[in-house]
Amino acid sequence: MTNGLPMSVPAAGLPARVRIHEVGARDGLQNEKTTVPTAVKAEFIHRLAAAGLGTIEATSFVHPKWVPQLADAAELMPLLADVDAHLPVLVPNERGLDRALALGVTEIAVFGSATESFAKANLNRTVDESLAMFEPVVARAREAGATVRGYLSMCFGDPWEGPVPVEQVAAVARRLYDLGCTELSLGDTIGVATPGHVTALLAALVEQGVPTDRLAVHFHDTYGQALSNTLAALQRGVTVVDASAGGLGGCPYAKSATGNLATEDLVWMLNGLGIDTGVDLDRLTATSVWMAEQLGRPSPSRTVRALSHQEP
Amino acid sequence: MTNGLPMSVPAAGLPARVRIHEVGARDGLQNEKTTVPTAVKAEFIHRLAAAGLGTIEATSFVHPKWVPQLADAAELMPLLADVDAHLPVLVPNERGLDRALALGVTEIAVFGSATESFAKANLNRTVDESLAMFEPVVARAREAGATVRGYLSMCFGDPWEGPVPVEQVAAVARRLYDLGCTELSLGDTIGVATPGHVTALLAALVEQGVPTDRLAVHFHDTYGQALSNTLAALQRGVTVVDASAGGLGGCPYAKSATGNLATEDLVWMLNGLGIDTGVDLDRLTATSVWMAEQLGRPSPSRTVRALSHQEP
Repeated sequence: MTNGLPMSVPAAGLPARVRIHEVGARDGLQNEKTTVPTAVKAEFIHRLAAAGLGTIEATSFVHPKWVPQLADAAELMPLLADVDAHLPVLVPNERGLDRALALGVTEIAVFGSATESFAKANLNRTVDESLAMFEPVVARAREAGATVRGYLSMCFGDPWEGPVPVEQVAAVARRLYDLGCTELSLGDTIGVATPGHVTALLAALVEQGVPTDRLAVHFHDTYGQALSNTLAALQRGVTVVDASAGGLGGCPYAKSATGNLATEDLVWMLNGLGIDTGVDLDRLTATSVWMAEQLGRPSPSRTVRALSHQEP
Repeated sequence: MTNGLPMSVPAAGLPARVRIHEVGARDGLQNEKTTVPTAVKAEFIHRLAAAGLGTIEATSFVHPKWVPQLADAAELMPLLADVDAHLPVLVPNERGLDRALALGVTEIAVFGSATESFAKANLNRTVDESLAMFEPVVARAREAGATVRGYLSMCFGDPWEGPVPVEQVAAVARRLYDLGCTELSLGDTIGVATPGHVTALLAALVEQGVPTDRLAVHFHDTYGQALSNTLAALQRGVTVVDASAGGLGGCPYAKSATGNLATEDLVWMLNGLGIDTGVDLDRLTATSVWMAEQLGRPSPSRTVRALSHQEP
């Protein structure tokens, strides 16, 4: 029984509304061991939209060799024609863009790296080469009238390089912005950020001339830091937050450890702060419980666990 | 590999140092199903002290009928004579105080409730009656030269009553303070608080004339909110934070769900913020991994899991 909880108590200096960019269907399922049937993905996305999520990253038009979990992108998209939400998709290159545009996609995302080590590991390119690869993708997407989100990963630390200087991240972010990205998502891919670091990076981006209202934050909960980092970002004016329903995309190394910030944990905090998200938390939780059953493992989200198991 | 991580980036308006009040050995073990042998408890507390924790709540002098897990308090305390840390103990009443003082204890804690429902459920008393019970305990402890921590539970919500008004909490806190408590620990017993609520309660306590430097915060991670609430409290000047090594005291309803904020998750954030705690995170994590082995279940702390399992 949590009727009336959390109590809504706004805090000074925070936005009235936050837009949640739901990444469970793409970033989440991409990192799950289980490959989910296309029909289940379609139902998942329909349920997320019915729970009030207005932006749901649907899939990735990447080669199936690299992400077999999302090999059905072209089959999935037609099943989402009636979904009442923005449905961006990830595209790695011009070939992916062509496939997405041919299916009527109007919002895409590209996935860059703030560090050379991860650019090499993930894209087999230098940072310069990856930006050169994105340039025609972004330009052609914009010409086609699509919006373009630029993901920037390893913004706070890198497993090979350790700490990443905020100036380095801000410089790469600025280049992505200059390519024509309409939104930049700052990713803490290995979950090592802390609130002062978040504040410093956001200040460095302002310094670089990237407007804060073009930024989203994408925190991972690997060390339990995602929500306090999100609070720090909201205090600096960020109003777009990435999260994954049920914390989908759990780290494969430890049972039920987590990668992405769980959307439910985020919504609990935002509900308590009186910040409007449009999301129905009970309906979202039910969706994540259902998805956990499809995957055959419990959700790592603390809020999902508490709301679905706990009795007073 | 997390060398150099988290990167230390201080944030404006936060304290230079935080004192962690480690509750794993008392609040944690009291809520675990497994009863731990006395020698293991003693080793646990020695290891916590060696990891740099300067305040370790050791046990509770409560009737074994109510807390069988801590029935060995009188056997445990003599084994801790050489521990280089403050070792407060919980006492429920004068009988418990007598037992503690007889063993040379110099720091005690009493456990009150901000709501009538929980006072009734936990103490079988009204709030007034419980304060009347504490009055001679606090007075006699202070006369004996002991410090007295007053726990106040259900400060943000109550499973029976729902939201709890901050004015109600502040009024009970003021009465505990007036009894002579040297420190008050504000407990979010069911984990429902959010940052604006924390800020509002702290403001209400200032309004009631309770100095912020006498306050500690005690957050539960049931909904994943503990660390962002802690950040909000630090931003309002609180410098004492309760936490439980490895997140001991996991909720019994869901496997590896959590009750108390894990000390490691807290230390990760404070390390990142450049806030001194005196704690060696690697040594603390090793202690929690060892304790998890004793309990036969994994730690619910995300930081413990990440540091003990994750490879780059």
